[in-house]
Amino acid sequence: MNRAALFEQIKKKNSYLCVGLDTDLDKIPRHLLSSSDPIFEFNKQIIDATHQYCVAYKPNIAFYEALGPKGWESLEKTMNYIPEDIFTIADAKRGDIGNTSALYAKTFFDYFHFDSVTVAPYMGEDSVKPFLYPDKWVILLAHTSNPGSSDFQLIESVVTGRKLYEEVLIKSQQWATPDQLMFVVGATQAEKMESIRAQAPEHFFLVPGVGAQGGDLKMVSKYGMNKQCGLLVNSARAIIYAGNGQDFAQRATAEAVKVQEEMSNYLHKYAN
Amino acid sequence: MNRAALFEQIKKKNSYLCVGLDTDLDKIPRHLLSSSDPIFEFNKQIIDATHQYCVAYKPNIAFYEALGPKGWESLEKTMNYIPEDIFTIADAKRGDIGNTSALYAKTFFDYFHFDSVTVAPYMGEDSVKPFLYPDKWVILLAHTSNPGSSDFQLIESVVTGRKLYEEVLIKSQQWATPDQLMFVVGATQAEKMESIRAQAPEHFFLVPGVGAQGGDLKMVSKYGMNKQCGLLVNSARAIIYAGNGQDFAQRATAEAVKVQEEMSNYLHKYAN
Repeated sequence: MNRAALFEQIKKKNSYLCVGLDTDLDKIPRHLLSSSDPIFEFNKQIIDATHQYCVAYKPNIAFYEALGPKGWESLEKTMNYIPEDIFTIADAKRGDIGNTSALYAKTFFDYFHFDSVTVAPYMGEDSVKPFLYPDKWVILLAHTSNPGSSDFQLIESVVTGRKLYEEVLIKSQQWATPDQLMFVVGATQAEKMESIRAQAPEHFFLVPGVGAQGGDLKMVSKYGMNKQCGLLVNSARAIIYAGNGQDFAQRATAEAVKVQEEMSNYLHKYAN
Repeated sequence: MNRAALFEQIKKKNSYLCVGLDTDLDKIPRHLLSSSDPIFEFNKQIIDATHQYCVAYKPNIAFYEALGPKGWESLEKTMNYIPEDIFTIADAKRGDIGNTSALYAKTFFDYFHFDSVTVAPYMGEDSVKPFLYPDKWVILLAHTSNPGSSDFQLIESVVTGRKLYEEVLIKSQQWATPDQLMFVVGATQAEKMESIRAQAPEHFFLVPGVGAQGGDLKMVSKYGMNKQCGLLVNSARAIIYAGNGQDFAQRATAEAVKVQEEMSNYLHKYAN
């Protein structure tokens, strides 16, 4: 899905919500465990319950990998079930030498048909470029939302005066246009959102951390939005585990609607 | 496998060779393609041909992932086939927020029973620590051997004067002892090996890049070895694709023997 099509979906749904499919056998409703594939059954019902209110789904690949080959089958079925007009993100944090990154790209783009994959920048240009496919996206880690993000991402360069995450933002823009490259910017970095947006004015940001990780949707939207929205804000646990009984899907709908309505306001207020 | 046991294996075999199982359907001998699982059949014959001369096997996870669920099955069979006394490395370059890293650890340690996994440091402490299991190892990327390694790894901190890869070396030593933590140091960084060894005197280094990537085994050994050897040097393509016909396994043996004999010399010369 290209940038224009993504923005069309955002306008159509008045939403920039990404639903994180962090599907965990220990957390899904008990009554699903008798199904032949509880992970897929849960995802299917969550997708049915939320697809009108979100523009993207983001399976967290670790949750599927941890189940071995069966997990990959659940992921494959999930990908086949997600409607065509919804953007898909493989949250995989991959990145390796060129020939290896090319294989990871093959996995997520050719095998599973994701629109995008999250990539860790530590190994530099030749670890990132193999993910540049036509009409597919690299979502590069810039400033993440976890406690350890300050360990290395804030190291300031003696040469440029820029922090590591800023070096990633600036340097990677030489590798790909805003039509193929997004950045991960944690919602817990809301106070930095304005300066990060100034360094990458046109790019989409994938913003995890609203909800369970404690980010602030209003601040993120106010300081992070650009004219084409430029934001995909992820919420996983707060939506998919809103309920834990027979009504879990309705509860997920209610949470998704709540976020979507808030987003609708911000879109009219800030995306101009 | 703990550090003492690993060093025992190194002394017993006079080798610190790690064989990289970068097994690729496009590169394995044609006559294996009629097998029900050509990837496993190739690995099995390579393991039979090389296990006396190496102390570790390193499946590059991308090669298995790219084949979907079937690839994971080939990996599982390969892991079951590797002899117990050989150290195993999941070359996966993972790393994510705590609960997600914990699931990646579960995948490679609990499901596949690897001894170690390679981890990318960009997200910091809480992305690394979930991989600290008893008698298991984190192999953290420090200075890699690919061209893009200079993009971010050489950024020098205005505060400490250390480069990013040195910050990784120093800071991560607060998170784990040399009994649970190794570093990836590319063989193409041979000229820096001495200073890197000074910053992490006791740790094992996993050194990729000897062979196809152009590293120099002698220089790596001379400047990188410590009293307990402290090196695992990986060779993949040069060994596993030494031949491409019916005799590919014998050709792999010949290459492995050649490297092992060279290593035997260096062990006696430098590991004192």
